[in-house]
Amino acid sequence: MASESGPEQSSGLTEDRIVREIFLKEPPLSSDFVVPPGDDAAVVRVEGDLVATADILVEGVHFDLSYFSPEDLGYRAVAVNLSDLAAMGARPHSCLVSVGMPSLVSEEFVRGLAAGIRDSLEEFGASLAGGDTVRSERVVVSVTALGTLDGKPLTRSGAKEGDGIYISGPAGLSHIGMLFLTGGTSGGEDLEEARRKHLRPVPRVALGLALREREIASSCIDTSDGLVRDLTRILEASGVGASIDVAPLLDERLRKLAQAAGVDPLDALLYGGEDFELLFTVPPEKEKELLRSVGEEVIRIGIVRAERGLSDSLGGEPLSLSGKGKSSFEHFGEGGA
Amino acid sequence: MASESGPEQSSGLTEDRIVREIFLKEPPLSSDFVVPPGDDAAVVRVEGDLVATADILVEGVHFDLSYFSPEDLGYRAVAVNLSDLAAMGARPHSCLVSVGMPSLVSEEFVRGLAAGIRDSLEEFGASLAGGDTVRSERVVVSVTALGTLDGKPLTRSGAKEGDGIYISGPAGLSHIGMLFLTGGTSGGEDLEEARRKHLRPVPRVALGLALREREIASSCIDTSDGLVRDLTRILEASGVGASIDVAPLLDERLRKLAQAAGVDPLDALLYGGEDFELLFTVPPEKEKELLRSVGEEVIRIGIVRAERGLSDSLGGEPLSLSGKGKSSFEHFGEGGA
Repeated sequence: MASESGPEQSSGLTEDRIVREIFLKEPPLSSDFVVPPGDDAAVVRVEGDLVATADILVEGVHFDLSYFSPEDLGYRAVAVNLSDLAAMGARPHSCLVSVGMPSLVSEEFVRGLAAGIRDSLEEFGASLAGGDTVRSERVVVSVTALGTLDGKPLTRSGAKEGDGIYISGPAGLSHIGMLFLTGGTSGGEDLEEARRKHLRPVPRVALGLALREREIASSCIDTSDGLVRDLTRILEASGVGASIDVAPLLDERLRKLAQAAGVDPLDALLYGGEDFELLFTVPPEKEKELLRSVGEEVIRIGIVRAERGLSDSLGGEPLSLSGKGKSSFEHFGEGGA
Repeated sequence: MASESGPEQSSGLTEDRIVREIFLKEPPLSSDFVVPPGDDAAVVRVEGDLVATADILVEGVHFDLSYFSPEDLGYRAVAVNLSDLAAMGARPHSCLVSVGMPSLVSEEFVRGLAAGIRDSLEEFGASLAGGDTVRSERVVVSVTALGTLDGKPLTRSGAKEGDGIYISGPAGLSHIGMLFLTGGTSGGEDLEEARRKHLRPVPRVALGLALREREIASSCIDTSDGLVRDLTRILEASGVGASIDVAPLLDERLRKLAQAAGVDPLDALLYGGEDFELLFTVPPEKEKELLRSVGEEVIRIGIVRAERGLSDSLGGEPLSLSGKGKSSFEHFGEGGA
């Protein structure tokens, strides 16, 4: 861990104590540390190519501590980074986690945050490779995730005309969960699932690995910014277009949840972000293998076209990044992680 | 780069535009990118072991925009991370840089920050491997630096009785520079050098590489938190003690600068942080080789003892982390990067 901040922090917790006793409490899982975190830097032995990505979460912008427990926050900060590794088909190796916290946070908060970080790392087989703890007015969690892969990574740029378009799970659920969380709506099991989707997104690590290792997907991205926006990124990087039919995603559950949250279900589905599902394309000759070999449920939602642009067979109209429902997503779009 | 934040940022600059047009304006320097930044993650081919470290700088805690230009801030954020790589004897490879900025910052600020980041990366042969841009009330710059090395890294734990203790440059200068900057004192060339030491610290990358490759140093750390604190980290990690004589560092220039800043020169020297010099130990049989082969000027300030503890031959008293001058460093200690 680094040594950028001073001694007195977080109600008398010193940085060294935070780092040594709380964040580094568990030994690194991986046996390939030449020098474990705690020196000026960690040294690790990496097999294959290195995959690196970074995301930063800021209190008041990406999350609110009124509905995020420190455990959920720590879990989520790591998970959204592992989701980027999953989208490349990489195996998680380790994360560096830098945390800014006001001096008034309790030791309980620090321990909760560290526990959430550890849970997420352990669940997906990654180690803590370092980080930093500093004072800041607002809570900030900045994560760099490192992964490894052998062979050709999944990228956004390989989609070709005729490829099927698939998603690994529901779209819009996390957005609806956030509306429940910020609006304080209480409710049944479905609401709980939507809230959990927002608080503890599950990176599709095993699916990403399978899609790459079996050479099934021609392109891949994770749905962090919403179906339309993320699919557009694939289409632009690949120089193609697409027709989608999102009817399979527009199920009764989503309709009911959207109604309870006071949002149009199709808008939530197309423009709601942060589901952290994998959105990927599969050449026709690989589609049978996908359904046969990938254990997780995947949903076919369209086909890649040669002509640029994205159209929806439900509405019949071309879909744009702005969308008809944009206004309801502005808060989300501006700040939502 | 990641996709964690929304579309409207920084006075109408979208995240995609910030990332693509400003931060990724220059192509990565390194030819070993399998997938350059811009996808869900970057993929790089790494030779040797990977060295990783992370530091986060927070506005109002580590820096103040009244005296930090965006260029200096960007430069410094990268440089302090490269200094941690230097302390391990690693060769800089790349950095991931996540930036939080208020929506009100100008495009000029964003361009300045990106230019400073680029300057620092280029000066030390590193590439930009990714990052994130988000909104936040205060400016936050979070950097992960990745380096490589072949063979045994420099660590804090190898100091042995009889080893000479060396430092690569002045101690206390950056602290005095910060006092000038925050106090608004103007002055001559010496003051300018102290200010520059604070704003644009120079990581000792070449020296760290030489100390490791020639197997000269038995332990090493960078002076981010002050001479006494950082030397204590080496001594504790190595299970030894030391006697130091800091007279060679207490020169006329430091005395004059300390007087102008209203601080005790010995306190600044012992407890002032952020100089980002290398502090290292050298076995007796290697000391001649050090002076012969290392181009940079290094200063001998003591000797490693078997008995625990740290004493200063100037004052004759044992030195502790608190020190006689602690009170004047509390602001610094609490927040100073």
